Parts: sequence; C-alpha cells; structure tokens
Amino acid sequence: MSFSPLVDELIESLRCLPGVGSKSAQRMALQLLERDRYSAARLSKALTASLDGVGRCQQCQNLAEQDICKICTNERRNTGVICVVETPSDLMAIEQSGNFNGRYFVLMGHLSPIDGIGPEEIGIDKLLRFIAEASIHELILATNSGVEGDATALYIADLLDGSDILVTKIAHGIPVGGQLGYVDGSTLSHALAGRKPVED
Amino acid sequence: MSFSPLVDELIESLRCLPGVGSKSAQRMALQLLERDRYSAARLSKALTASLDGVGRCQQCQNLAEQDICKICTNERRNTGVICVVETPSDLMAIEQSGNFNGRYFVLMGHLSPIDGIGPEEIGIDKLLRFIAEASIHELILATNSGVEGDATALYIADLLDGSDILVTKIAHGIPVGGQLGYVDGSTLSHALAGRKPVED
Repeated sequence: MSFSPLVDELIESLRCLPGVGSKSAQRMALQLLERDRYSAARLSKALTASLDGVGRCQQCQNLAEQDICKICTNERRNTGVICVVETPSDLMAIEQSGNFNGRYFVLMGHLSPIDGIGPEEIGIDKLLRFIAEASIHELILATNSGVEGDATALYIADLLDGSDILVTKIAHGIPVGGQLGYVDGSTLSHALAGRKPVED
Repeated sequence: MSFSPLVDELIESLRCLPGVGSKSAQRMALQLLERDRYSAARLSKALTASLDGVGRCQQCQNLAEQDICKICTNERRNTGVICVVETPSDLMAIEQSGNFNGRYFVLMGHLSPIDGIGPEEIGIDKLLRFIAEASIHELILATNSGVEGDATALYIADLLDGSDILVTKIAHGIPVGGQLGYVDGSTLSHALAGRKPVED
C-alpha cells in the first residue's frame, strides 16, 4: 500500500536531501501538499533557477553565477593572500567572521584516495595556476582538521616547498568560550602544542 | 555577506520544509548544487508534477490524483465501515498495519477553535453526507489522543447520537512490546481504565 504515484515520487525525491529519511520525507511531502502549496511551488522554481544559473567560479571554484565570482573580482580585497578551504560553507563561515580580506580557493572536498579523490579532483592544478597568476605572498590553509583535511593541507604545503610563498595553517585549540573540562583530548593536545608566549 | 542571489533564494525556499532551519537549509542547498544536481532536478520536477496532479478525494478528503480515490472506489473493501483519521499519514499507518478493510474519512486536521478551525474546516458536513450515502453500520474514530483529537472524536460521536450507527473509538493503552516502567502515567491510566476480562 502506498500513496498515489505522484506523492510517492515526491517522497522518494525528498530523500535525496541530507539528513532526510523516509519518515521525514513523508512528513515533508504531506505538509507541502496539504498546507503549503505556495512554498512547494517556490521551492520547485528555486531549484530549477539555481540549477540553471549557478556554476563554479573558474578561478576559485566557489559556487557563482558569473564566470568569475564576486570575491575574485572585488578590487578592494587583498590580492596577495589566498585562503584554501574545503567547501563553500567553510568559505562562508570565514567571511562571516569578518576578519579575512584576501581571496579564497575552494577545493570542493579533500584528498581521499580510497574514494578515488586525488589532486586532480580537488583542482590542485587550478590552485597552482591561480597562485602563479596572482603572485601572492601568503597561502593560508584552512582545511578541516582530521586525517583527510590534514593530509590535503600537507600535500599543498609540500607542493609549495622551496617557493618564496609563506604557507600558514589556521590555529587549532580551545574554542572561545569553551571550558577545558568539556574539550576532547585531541583538541587539548593541539592547544598545548600550539602555546605561545604571553605578550605584554 | 551571502551566497549568490539564486543560492540564497534556494536556501530560503528549503526552509519551508518542516524541521529544517537555516543551517540545515544551507547544507541541503550546497549538497544539491555541489554533488547531486540530478536529484535536485528530480525533486523540482516531482514538486511541480504533484502540485499539478494531486488534489483531494471528493468523498473522503484523502490526497488523490483522481476525483474519487482508489480506496473509495475499491469494490473489495467493506463499505459498511468508515474509519475517521486526522491526516493522510494516519491513514497510511492504519493501511500498513493491514488489519482494516473498510473505507476512511480524512479530516485533514482536528477541531481547534483557537486557530479558527471549526467543523466546516475539517469537512464534517462531507463526513455526514458520506455516512448517509454509504449506509454504514459502524464509524471508527481514530483521531490522535490529546485534547483536540479527543474533542473532535466526541463532537462527531455526539452528532451521530441517536442514529443506529455504532460509533467506536480505537483503544489507547500500552504499546505492544512497551515496558510498563517506561510508559507515561496518562497512557497507564488509559490502559487500566480500558482493561478487559481475560478470555479462555
């Protein structure tokens, strides 16, 4: 027993969303059809429009509606620094912190040989071309901490070994407002290893 | 700072889904655009198709692609019994239990005067017409337990008071496999009040 074919197809389609199982998908489909047809139409339209209109920036690989994204073409930004992140949402998080004024390069993933993701898949060649064209003085590695993220950062740092570009990595340690008692051991080790002299 | 206008609109549209906040919506939008454009196109199509094709059964108010739904027109079903439920997913749950062979009436909600939902909004007039036309002998009330659901059930039962239709209500008690120690007091009270003599 099932709903009508169209409702079944809608439920099945909703399951492609991350974190949505069959029960949630059913709830979403029924809510849209019973109570919120306006939003359903809007969602359908937004999906089509963004599929048609959103591609990737040819320079930094970020999601963009133009060939080159707004951050890359912004002349007010510091063109001497590139920050390497894994995903557009990492980029967004850094943008929202408001403390970085350089440009980005979005890997759209991290090295993961077991899944067949090598340097080519994450656009390392594009990154090197970008670095060469932009004549930067610093490359900030802001990949996620974790085995794959760290390996990706190391790989990129190795590639630039011997060049005169300063390669840095963002700090890992205790989050601001975090309490030592609730922080995991690995983070604490990083925080201890990354200690700095107290400045007056 | 935000993503491009199209991506922002997609994120905003995804927030209409129940249980989806701004962070989840962002995650969904980026996943669809970065990795799963095929599913996004499928979802958009399914939304449009079901908005165009799915309406309500004119007899039982269930979601249906035809004027009268498949359950109402199924000649193998017992036409003498109608089970009143609040939503299509309640109907589906009873169908999946496989123990009911009558027809349904879907209220699409429950009486809730404070939200402006009276007998007309949940289609009580349609229910009475359906009952009269179908010449049933039993009406099963399967509204959710809770103040509004119980009030709705009582209201319908009152309307049929004096007719020769048997009005019943599904049993509330301990779930099968449930442990007494973990069941809430209200359910236990219902279970005790609804006790039955042990049959040999």
